[in-house]
Amino acid sequence: MSNDEISGDAITAARERIAGHVHHTPVMTSATLDARFGGSLFFKCENFQKSGAFKVRGAFNAVLSLDEEAAAHGVVTSSSGNQAAAVSLAARARGIAAYIAMPKIAAASKVASVERYGGNIIRVESVEDFPTTEEYEATVRGIQTRTGASYVHPYDDLRTITGQATCATELLEDVEALDLVLAPVGGGGLLSGTARAVSIYSDGAQTIGCEPAMADDAKSSLAAGAIVPQNDPRTIADGLRTSLGQHTFPIIAAEVSEIVTVSEESILAAMRLVWEIMKIVIEPSAAVPVAVLMEGSVVLEGRRAGVILSGGNVDLESLPPW
Amino acid sequence: MSNDEISGDAITAARERIAGHVHHTPVMTSATLDARFGGSLFFKCENFQKSGAFKVRGAFNAVLSLDEEAAAHGVVTSSSGNQAAAVSLAARARGIAAYIAMPKIAAASKVASVERYGGNIIRVESVEDFPTTEEYEATVRGIQTRTGASYVHPYDDLRTITGQATCATELLEDVEALDLVLAPVGGGGLLSGTARAVSIYSDGAQTIGCEPAMADDAKSSLAAGAIVPQNDPRTIADGLRTSLGQHTFPIIAAEVSEIVTVSEESILAAMRLVWEIMKIVIEPSAAVPVAVLMEGSVVLEGRRAGVILSGGNVDLESLPPW
Repeated sequence: MSNDEISGDAITAARERIAGHVHHTPVMTSATLDARFGGSLFFKCENFQKSGAFKVRGAFNAVLSLDEEAAAHGVVTSSSGNQAAAVSLAARARGIAAYIAMPKIAAASKVASVERYGGNIIRVESVEDFPTTEEYEATVRGIQTRTGASYVHPYDDLRTITGQATCATELLEDVEALDLVLAPVGGGGLLSGTARAVSIYSDGAQTIGCEPAMADDAKSSLAAGAIVPQNDPRTIADGLRTSLGQHTFPIIAAEVSEIVTVSEESILAAMRLVWEIMKIVIEPSAAVPVAVLMEGSVVLEGRRAGVILSGGNVDLESLPPW
Repeated sequence: MSNDEISGDAITAARERIAGHVHHTPVMTSATLDARFGGSLFFKCENFQKSGAFKVRGAFNAVLSLDEEAAAHGVVTSSSGNQAAAVSLAARARGIAAYIAMPKIAAASKVASVERYGGNIIRVESVEDFPTTEEYEATVRGIQTRTGASYVHPYDDLRTITGQATCATELLEDVEALDLVLAPVGGGGLLSGTARAVSIYSDGAQTIGCEPAMADDAKSSLAAGAIVPQNDPRTIADGLRTSLGQHTFPIIAAEVSEIVTVSEESILAAMRLVWEIMKIVIEPSAAVPVAVLMEGSVVLEGRRAGVILSGGNVDLESLPPW
């Protein structure tokens, strides 16, 4: 496996494949936040993306990449959240079946999204509330044996990563001369795609991965030089509880400048800041790069930074009190 | 007083006066909400306006209309909310003093906005939590006696109304062939300005006023043919607790097709719907037109409707639990 597989040509092909199915999302700015952080911020609003998160980019790229014979058997993915809705939507667009392995405790709003998009939910048998990777895989294998469906990994799949790379590609097209791009990191699909796009399309910008301290497996993995798995982290940034994978780890190790971690308190404060100042709804995972700026661990003074606001699907009932 | 005073020429002059100080806000659409309501909706996003609400349009128009001699003594307004910040911001832009008569119980976030923009806060002595019109006026007169400041009424002032008319003017410029425009009504500054813009610039569109049933003075006033004041209403739509005025009432009586009222439950459900589906933060007052659509009292089927989302300043702490 080489990083070259996620090439400019591959990203261009992905953009063409998913065009018409996903939004070219807007970039927002805020004079108030620029003044506060002392730089120029460009927020890529994937909260306004179809299904409310960037995940549709990778999901559409993977689902639309399948040949006819494979597609006829449908697709399967595993997710407690945004990936579930994204693959359901992509499968519906192609007119094929989607099978979604979801935890028993998946939020009602996520289940409702999958059902609205016509996905078939299969509950994962698990010992803890959140299934382990092995428990997810057992359920996925069962579905595949029964249906012959193709597996679309939520992040550790070159088709998925290439799809996610289209997000930063749009950002770099719409905003000139960025010095750095901040993106959250969970399994690393968005971050590795972002890093590839920045390497290919920017003039030497840095990619910075932003991670909850409570789920700091990317930071640990880079320090160790090998994947350090994450065990059942309870961070409020529920999109970032997964561990790096075989495809995402080497790209991140090679092309991401730095992984910066933040506290749970900062994540909530950053989410609130964006809601109150920018008047847009972002989910906790999307607030993690903003939390990095609030904690001051990346110096922004005089620099131009892209910030990927990865999604806006938040369960209002399960938020802690303000 | 004739409605003709808010003419196309006056609106054009206001637009030129306030250009560079206020945003030409975006219009958002939502395929999900169109499908739900069976029409085509165009949301004018004044939640993204400077200071987070449409009020800066009227405030800048009024403050920038003053002659040099009057301006030198500063401006005074009375407000518990968005008008306070708007006049403070406009006065700062002109380099003059702003005096803001605010209730003793004004929300901390509103006080903070005024202070951030350099306004001087004077607390209104009142018997109840919310001051009466007379109590506000007594405080304003005291400030004027002391400073010679010019009064900018939050809604019942032709300069204010003409400024608010620029909002629907932009909407009608950006979206073709609207059949109706929905706006919330409190004191009627936004609604009367909207009605004038619709009369002047649309091809026969209707203007619909949207009001909390708990503060239904506009509906009562139109039925009675005279202003029926509102007494201390506790609607969650805190921007809509005021009564129609001498300038706003006749315009609304002549040019608004209908006033539709909604329940408090619908206002909260509508606010939540917009947060969750559109991923934007709107305040309860801005949710009132959406609540009208949810209650089904305006038939949208096959029609094109503009919806003015008037602001996004919400106190997260004081929201009821979801």
